[in-house]
Amino acid sequence: MLADVTAAALVLHDQQDPLAAKRDAFVLPANTLYLDGNSLGAMPKAAAVRAQQVLAAQWAQDLIKSWNTHQWIDLPQTVGEKIAPLLGAAPGQVICCDSTSVNLFKVLSCAMLMQTGRVKVLSQAGNFPTDLYMVQGLASLLGEQHCQLVLANDSIDNQALEQAITEEVAVLLLTQVDFRSGRLLDMQRLTQLAHAKGVLVIWDLAHSAGALPIELDICQVDFAVGCGYKYLNGGPGAPAFLYAAKRHHARLTQPLSGWMGHQAPFNFDNTYQKAPGITQFLTGTPAILSMSVLDAALEVFADVDMATVREKSLALSSIFHQLVQQQGSLHALQLLTPLEPAERGSQLAYQHPNAYALCQALIKQGVIADFRSPNILRLGFTPLYTRYVDVGTAVAILANIVSSNEYLKPEYAIKQKVT
Amino acid sequence: MLADVTAAALVLHDQQDPLAAKRDAFVLPANTLYLDGNSLGAMPKAAAVRAQQVLAAQWAQDLIKSWNTHQWIDLPQTVGEKIAPLLGAAPGQVICCDSTSVNLFKVLSCAMLMQTGRVKVLSQAGNFPTDLYMVQGLASLLGEQHCQLVLANDSIDNQALEQAITEEVAVLLLTQVDFRSGRLLDMQRLTQLAHAKGVLVIWDLAHSAGALPIELDICQVDFAVGCGYKYLNGGPGAPAFLYAAKRHHARLTQPLSGWMGHQAPFNFDNTYQKAPGITQFLTGTPAILSMSVLDAALEVFADVDMATVREKSLALSSIFHQLVQQQGSLHALQLLTPLEPAERGSQLAYQHPNAYALCQALIKQGVIADFRSPNILRLGFTPLYTRYVDVGTAVAILANIVSSNEYLKPEYAIKQKVT
Repeated sequence: MLADVTAAALVLHDQQDPLAAKRDAFVLPANTLYLDGNSLGAMPKAAAVRAQQVLAAQWAQDLIKSWNTHQWIDLPQTVGEKIAPLLGAAPGQVICCDSTSVNLFKVLSCAMLMQTGRVKVLSQAGNFPTDLYMVQGLASLLGEQHCQLVLANDSIDNQALEQAITEEVAVLLLTQVDFRSGRLLDMQRLTQLAHAKGVLVIWDLAHSAGALPIELDICQVDFAVGCGYKYLNGGPGAPAFLYAAKRHHARLTQPLSGWMGHQAPFNFDNTYQKAPGITQFLTGTPAILSMSVLDAALEVFADVDMATVREKSLALSSIFHQLVQQQGSLHALQLLTPLEPAERGSQLAYQHPNAYALCQALIKQGVIADFRSPNILRLGFTPLYTRYVDVGTAVAILANIVSSNEYLKPEYAIKQKVT
Repeated sequence: MLADVTAAALVLHDQQDPLAAKRDAFVLPANTLYLDGNSLGAMPKAAAVRAQQVLAAQWAQDLIKSWNTHQWIDLPQTVGEKIAPLLGAAPGQVICCDSTSVNLFKVLSCAMLMQTGRVKVLSQAGNFPTDLYMVQGLASLLGEQHCQLVLANDSIDNQALEQAITEEVAVLLLTQVDFRSGRLLDMQRLTQLAHAKGVLVIWDLAHSAGALPIELDICQVDFAVGCGYKYLNGGPGAPAFLYAAKRHHARLTQPLSGWMGHQAPFNFDNTYQKAPGITQFLTGTPAILSMSVLDAALEVFADVDMATVREKSLALSSIFHQLVQQQGSLHALQLLTPLEPAERGSQLAYQHPNAYALCQALIKQGVIADFRSPNILRLGFTPLYTRYVDVGTAVAILANIVSSNEYLKPEYAIKQKVT
């Protein structure tokens, strides 16, 4: 057992934190401890500035000319190249567009078309539902004889998953950090296991991009998708991103083949000819306002070392859990997240029969956490704007809510929850 | 031949214009005549105000809670219901999401799955390329034996098109107003012809929504898609919309089946169960900032009668052409757009061997027009913010550019054009 964490120790941590100054790059509401950056990142100040420029100077004044003069037309590639270093991707492999779900459909279709004779898409039962739904959607279009979702049960040692990776599988579709438990999968090991069986691999990075170092190129990942509005702080429903390894580019057939993915969109030819490189993954006209905001938000990462982010992320969550353990009143909180650093992302998930009420009571008292059905209290740690003292305060408030039975008040009873 | 249009007559038109006051709802650049609202609508003042609210008050302050407290979660439906009256659609049939191209893929897939035994998608050779490309994309996924694009040649009388509507066709895919010529198709007639042969119909309304009255329900259209950033003024790359007739809702299988189209997305079930009604067409998380701006932009239409818009649109373009005919120096401009009101949308297209240079010279002198390869000068008329006097000034500037040979200067020579 470690020594108790003291308030003084937390203050010292903040004083020694190399990321401490980054907090000032964000607008944060007063009297709020925000532990839900894994759902929606906080607003970087630069994002609001850029939005204002796009509205008042670009759209309103320069109108249609802005496609050239303000480089709107290049934004998907520009933003993609800003995300690439966070993913361990060399240039020319990441592009910003559409939603994570739509992008998953693109890379999944590409992968299935590459895998003649194999029809199974292997994922985990606990994967984020939209990933599973998109496979089911493709299957509804192609027929079960051409595309079939197979789910391995989740287990601590991944035994069921690893055993299910066979030569019958076309595509392995995994989320690096589980949205419920916060569990981190071993990208290198699982990708290697898949490749050894001729299986192509798609990683969903929604809960890892911007939260921890990722090495897509080193792991020889085939495809990846991810989200712009969580740890990348791109704003609500920000455009998503897509990675496709360069070695595959020449032979891909991307079925959402809209004009922006054409090799010469302004020739207005009748026949689709895909653009070279990662641009082939574009479909319709990019959402310039939202994408510009994401572009500005990414500037926060320009001088940030992801190893430093990871170190602070693990420290924040370790300390949070240690403080929970110090509080007798919190013994009913069951940690679902593996404590081993190599096995967890940047969040903690606790099971509790009253998780919904606990979450609502926390929010009422200014600690923004998240509830995931049926019984999970989820706390995200975003090192760019979360302080060590915040963690201490959050646990103290949580302990008080439980010891005082505040959370049992009828106002916190379960209702339809939306986030 | 009509009598010459005089400057005094244009001033009088503006004085008597019932839409004159609407111009004040927009931010318009000084010293600019904007005749490209058919590419990118001008910015409504309300759009900038809303963007600021979403950034500063909603995202920055209320963060994740905004999904409920600011009704972010309902935006796709809210915006859809604001667009519906402009399309002649009863409630529950229009939703805002994704891009026009992605939405076309959704409704096309639905339609093809409904049409067992038929594989042909009939469109026109002059249709906007992304529509054709999306059919080609679906064909690349399903195979030519299941989906095959067939193009009818464009002709003034639509004879080739109408003759091609046979019982072999699964889906008729047409754009109501041609992006090049501005030609308006007869939605009622073509939809009826198609239905008589058991063909389902998809209309692309990119160049008609917000420009003229549309009667999707009365015409018994099956599906439609359209664009938020042209006549709806939603901002660059604004989210698009999608219409599906209520009579089809129960039996549709939409393959881009993301979590937002699930009947209970926050139950996080592993199996996709489509939401009832039009919500089944949602895929990923909506782009809240861009969609909020479109929502605010649509308020401009709240008290507008589309018949009045249409009347002014036709008057603006008629007068523009009459003024062109009055100018001897402009005789080389060949009108591509049918002059008959029932056969044109809200733009004029002129063929000219130096169309690109003419367009660039116009832009240089503050008249924002558009060039479409290879030789088309395109002028869009947006009655909410274009005055009659603007039309007079624009033609005068154009005539001067030609008579002075300004457009022959090397600076206007063709380069890669992007819009």
